[in-house]
Amino acid sequence: MNFMEQSGLDAAFDAIGSILGDRLTTSLAVREQHGKDQTYHPGAVPDAVAFPHTTDEVSAIVRICAGHQVAVIAHGTGTSLEGHIAALRGGITIDLMAMKRVLEVNAEDQDCRVEAGITRQQLNDHLRDTGLFFPVDPGADASIGGMTATRASGTNAVRYGTMRENVLGLTVVMADGEIIRTGGRARKSSSGYDLTRLLIGSEGTLGVITEIRLRLFGIPEAISAAVCSFPSVEDAVNTVILTIQSGVPIARVEFLDTLSMKACVGYSGLEGYAVAPTLFLEFHGSNAHVAEQTETVKGIAADFGGGDFQWAAGAEDRNRLWQARHDAFWACKALRPGASAIVTDVCVPISRLAECVATVDEEIRRAGLIAPIIGHVGDGNFHLVMLVDLDDADEVARARNLNRHMVEKALSMGGTCSGEHGVGYGKIGFLDAEHGPGTMRAMRQIKQALDPQGIMNPGKIVEI
Amino acid sequence: MNFMEQSGLDAAFDAIGSILGDRLTTSLAVREQHGKDQTYHPGAVPDAVAFPHTTDEVSAIVRICAGHQVAVIAHGTGTSLEGHIAALRGGITIDLMAMKRVLEVNAEDQDCRVEAGITRQQLNDHLRDTGLFFPVDPGADASIGGMTATRASGTNAVRYGTMRENVLGLTVVMADGEIIRTGGRARKSSSGYDLTRLLIGSEGTLGVITEIRLRLFGIPEAISAAVCSFPSVEDAVNTVILTIQSGVPIARVEFLDTLSMKACVGYSGLEGYAVAPTLFLEFHGSNAHVAEQTETVKGIAADFGGGDFQWAAGAEDRNRLWQARHDAFWACKALRPGASAIVTDVCVPISRLAECVATVDEEIRRAGLIAPIIGHVGDGNFHLVMLVDLDDADEVARARNLNRHMVEKALSMGGTCSGEHGVGYGKIGFLDAEHGPGTMRAMRQIKQALDPQGIMNPGKIVEI
Repeated sequence: MNFMEQSGLDAAFDAIGSILGDRLTTSLAVREQHGKDQTYHPGAVPDAVAFPHTTDEVSAIVRICAGHQVAVIAHGTGTSLEGHIAALRGGITIDLMAMKRVLEVNAEDQDCRVEAGITRQQLNDHLRDTGLFFPVDPGADASIGGMTATRASGTNAVRYGTMRENVLGLTVVMADGEIIRTGGRARKSSSGYDLTRLLIGSEGTLGVITEIRLRLFGIPEAISAAVCSFPSVEDAVNTVILTIQSGVPIARVEFLDTLSMKACVGYSGLEGYAVAPTLFLEFHGSNAHVAEQTETVKGIAADFGGGDFQWAAGAEDRNRLWQARHDAFWACKALRPGASAIVTDVCVPISRLAECVATVDEEIRRAGLIAPIIGHVGDGNFHLVMLVDLDDADEVARARNLNRHMVEKALSMGGTCSGEHGVGYGKIGFLDAEHGPGTMRAMRQIKQALDPQGIMNPGKIVEI
Repeated sequence: MNFMEQSGLDAAFDAIGSILGDRLTTSLAVREQHGKDQTYHPGAVPDAVAFPHTTDEVSAIVRICAGHQVAVIAHGTGTSLEGHIAALRGGITIDLMAMKRVLEVNAEDQDCRVEAGITRQQLNDHLRDTGLFFPVDPGADASIGGMTATRASGTNAVRYGTMRENVLGLTVVMADGEIIRTGGRARKSSSGYDLTRLLIGSEGTLGVITEIRLRLFGIPEAISAAVCSFPSVEDAVNTVILTIQSGVPIARVEFLDTLSMKACVGYSGLEGYAVAPTLFLEFHGSNAHVAEQTETVKGIAADFGGGDFQWAAGAEDRNRLWQARHDAFWACKALRPGASAIVTDVCVPISRLAECVATVDEEIRRAGLIAPIIGHVGDGNFHLVMLVDLDDADEVARARNLNRHMVEKALSMGGTCSGEHGVGYGKIGFLDAEHGPGTMRAMRQIKQALDPQGIMNPGKIVEI
């Protein structure tokens, strides 16, 4: 594929510029800002950044890029973690953050339709008066478009599901600039191929998502959060396994290992919390049902040596607690000032989670790294935050090695190389081992069919 | 595409016969039995029927068919409703019903892996001692493979989701005979394209599903069912809308119109139940939570003029009630002995359901047809059972016309032409109107990419 021949690029700029005016820029500062996500993966600067206001404008941009074989990279808040937005082959980054309208809210049907650039917090602010909320919460205040494109999940997924379960339909600009709609307002459908699900998690490699129809949920009558520490990782995990087996619809259950608790206690002022393997729990429901769920889980936790529940029943305490959980990344970074974070995640069957964490713990020690572990334990998903000096080649090599071992361990347990961070180009090398050559061939065939020129976010997920 | 040149067919038979022996048959009776589903759609007889025992045998069959451009039709229990299994271009039907092993049950992770031919009741019988169950229940005791291939749902979907939400991964024989695995044991993953969801609902047009990994759920501590009648369809629907908005995790909520209640009362001996618009409800949870849910819904129903709840708390009463619901199709047929049933379904946003049912009701009267309405009302999905004399061309034309109007109405409300019956060839003509030309083109591109010869269940969903 011949990308970026200067003549084609110039012609594309001219054509797009005539539509967008100064909303197309080649300013180096803007380009650099758009070529790099929050991680250690090296960025790659696009040749220009476009700021469309409508799906039609996105369509026009992609059509022009297709005509000149110029790469197209969709961009939301830039909070992805596997190098998703690096313009590996140059091209034009489409920044969708000006598209943040709420197009519909249907309270009776508990759905809405939004533009890709709205963030989850902006959406929830908009919904405040309706009694409804959108539950998927990956931590960062990411855009709904980016969350859809990366199949995001996060703390609430154990109860409410991931983007996979909560997107009803999409408006997408395909690789030739055609605008298509997938899915619809019906809660379920058996009418043809599930293009919605195919596009969720496709990371901009099959099309640019410009609008998303979402499921919403009623804000529960009661919400209650608690913290409980355990003698060991295994005890914490077993508490979660039994909780789920008991049919308790726990809304969030987060695991923090001793080191990450130490980080959070220091960073977020969680004085009084034990520095030990810990669960952060949240219960949603009616008052009576929340009380019942809590009693059940307290009983289970006690059987596994869990300490007393420390409550955060008021909204303020609760927000402080979850803010601390969301800030855990920054808290961990503060454990080694000046260091960079190499962040990775895997997901395994929950029955194997304690063993997987123990193995990774042992590898951390052996590698001589500082690397707290934090997990969405109800899903069997956990994150490793390796704090390294990126200028120390040997340390970086040990961290990469640890990442590889963690993925291999997860795959050997029937797990996945990425529970929620996606593939980008950071994990592209693991897909063969996870899926096998036949399955990867099917993915490439689909990529080839929908993006025959390979212009959509090239170098991510699959190469054609 | 040249299907069924006799020489290619003969060569394929010889090659497959040498592997399967007498498990490949050209007996007319067997072929006829396999070319026709339970509906009015004309069947089409395959040239042979194969009965493989393993995924490897399925792979060998498909590989041979691919080599000779012979069509391949996957076949489960044959209970599909839109002509899915008709061998429109001849070829070889692969009957998967001998493949019914349970390959794994992981109680701690609440998942299992089964072969495609096991039925949902056989699976639940197998699971009985584990305290777990598989919730998706489309009524018929369909095979798990067929349920996956048609994205089945049914009465429990309002709480537990459809096959889309409950399949974790697949083993699939692709159009060239290659065996691939999709998904895995992790509860979530953001590792590449979601081939699992693409294949769910693909009706054998992209590959033959031979194994399925499923989510399981703990059997609830308490289950309670009730029946409640209402002054009008709208009152019944409004009760359901408010129930869902109130966050009550209702497990089943089925709507029967006056005519279908009349049918069920007569057929299933439900004496004492009112012949009026009726909801069948089921609640799952702890004893206390079921009691609380019930009180909430009773209050809501009373506000909409609902009658007293008639309880079926014991397992025997409850089974009788749900058996009556499952037998509703036969009960409806008995309303007009000797008539055939033209069955159809649509799904709309629940806020539009009462209006949609009212419109259809009016059309039924205008068309002079006998046609009870039954719905999975929590999802906005309802079925029409038109009882017609298939020899009366005018009556059949009126029924087809009504089907078309019902679909058009649903689409105009943002709904879908099929909530759970699928496309087969019965609804293939509605897909353009529902999805639009760009989306259909993407579906065709995917079909072309994964089945370039067009041998997989040709004539269903999309033509290439």
